Amino acid sequence: MARVTQRRRVTRLTADGEVRERADVLAGEEPLEVRVNSEPLSVTMRTPGNDFDLAVGFLHGEGIVSGWDDVAQIDYRSGIGADGQRDYNVVDVTLAEGVRPPDPSLERHVYTSSSCGVCGTSSIEAVQRESRHDLRSDTTTFSLTRLLALPDLLREAQAVFDRTGGVHAAGLFVPGRNGLELTCLREDVGRHNAVDKVLGWALRERGVPLRGSVLQVSGRASFELVQKAALAGIPVLSAVSAPSSLAVELADDVGLTLIGFNRGSSLNVYAHRSRVSLDDGSPDAEPLLG
Amino acid sequence: MARVTQRRRVTRLTADGEVRERADVLAGEEPLEVRVNSEPLSVTMRTPGNDFDLAVGFLHGEGIVSGWDDVAQIDYRSGIGADGQRDYNVVDVTLAEGVRPPDPSLERHVYTSSSCGVCGTSSIEAVQRESRHDLRSDTTTFSLTRLLALPDLLREAQAVFDRTGGVHAAGLFVPGRNGLELTCLREDVGRHNAVDKVLGWALRERGVPLRGSVLQVSGRASFELVQKAALAGIPVLSAVSAPSSLAVELADDVGLTLIGFNRGSSLNVYAHRSRVSLDDGSPDAEPLLG
Repeated sequence: MARVTQRRRVTRLTADGEVRERADVLAGEEPLEVRVNSEPLSVTMRTPGNDFDLAVGFLHGEGIVSGWDDVAQIDYRSGIGADGQRDYNVVDVTLAEGVRPPDPSLERHVYTSSSCGVCGTSSIEAVQRESRHDLRSDTTTFSLTRLLALPDLLREAQAVFDRTGGVHAAGLFVPGRNGLELTCLREDVGRHNAVDKVLGWALRERGVPLRGSVLQVSGRASFELVQKAALAGIPVLSAVSAPSSLAVELADDVGLTLIGFNRGSSLNVYAHRSRVSLDDGSPDAEPLLG
Repeated sequence: MARVTQRRRVTRLTADGEVRERADVLAGEEPLEVRVNSEPLSVTMRTPGNDFDLAVGFLHGEGIVSGWDDVAQIDYRSGIGADGQRDYNVVDVTLAEGVRPPDPSLERHVYTSSSCGVCGTSSIEAVQRESRHDLRSDTTTFSLTRLLALPDLLREAQAVFDRTGGVHAAGLFVPGRNGLELTCLREDVGRHNAVDKVLGWALRERGVPLRGSVLQVSGRASFELVQKAALAGIPVLSAVSAPSSLAVELADDVGLTLIGFNRGSSLNVYAHRSRVSLDDGSPDAEPLLG
């Protein structure tokens, strides 16, 4: 129960007819139910690990908590598996006094999947949330060279990926002595879970809003990832793959710098390129005009 | 509104300092609300197109309809955008007489995202559904050579991917004169949506259960994709990337052949390899022992 990876016997077959039995390592995927004040709120398919951060990161993206202090208690008390043992697949969140629980009349009893992000909104109009943090006031710039290095830095730090090939990663980078430095890396079978785990960590560390940071993700940039980043005050989201049209529209609207196809030797900037500078990171560099 | 792709201006920056403005084609991503008998059931972020198939495929995966004949009417009547025009982002499904609508007391008023699959189940226990179709009775075998060809066949047929790099694809293959032939290809920003669109098409064509077919997907194999395939009676799911641990467990349980890392020159079989034969597809070939 609740394992980050699992070993399975697998048969590898090649075009020239070679058949080989071997043990393979798979990314763990198990449902996690999040309960708020004892009421079930969501079920997400996730890779076990950092579940409390995942739960609080998710609640933050849903606008239910604005910080870790909005959580009075968090534990696994409800989850009992078929064998009568605690199964660590239910996280119970008790909100602090005065924090409004999700309103059942808004139909927020939702069930989310490994890539859910808009779950929990009861109308299309509500999908696009207002960010609490003003990204436009964050004028940090990042050199192109340093931004291009992020996918490799993320990949080097990934623990699970190399073994399973089946997880998404999200890494939070902040300026440090040696350029952009990785402060938190999370992996999950779901892209959005990886990001929620990073944001939950940041909330627990009282680091939100994450001004001056860059969130690098291993996959594509969806609307929901832009939304989650903006809600946490992250000014730059960089993705290895393509953004969607709505991700670009939202980034444009909220003032987030959106980078796609970051492949080490080149990248595309889809919105607010004023935060990308062509220099080597010296502080007096001129940013590109956005 | 509701465009499959959108053109955007993008700035491409390379490591040697080249800066180029150009037009880029992005995969469309817009919310789609599905209403059943006028009640909102779900919102998913999807690439516009084949929305009726998507809606019915989704309802099939949720156990609400078992075939297209369970749908009395399907249209866009409710969706009105901010400009007062029909926006094609709300699909209204009216169930046929006698078909039970989703029970609101089961908290199925859910909001799903581009990769949602377990959305709509009100407890962890309900995540793993019973398939209506007995996959074990489907003893079709497929030659390794033909299975290895599927990712390339899928890629060649993909219309949107080449332009945007940002969508997932699902293709349904059936035995034909020239080996396995593609009968339905769908693309979407959400993996699960691409599969729902294929399954909705098959339901509309009255082709379910899809005995003797193979579903090839461009990404990884999650629990939900195995579940959707099994519910439609598809005996083989083949993915370009890794399966999760729960996907393998479910495939094992329901009798589905699960292939991962299908990369053209080799593939891994994670469950029920008896449907994979090493020959060139001649009917008297001996299957591998499963």
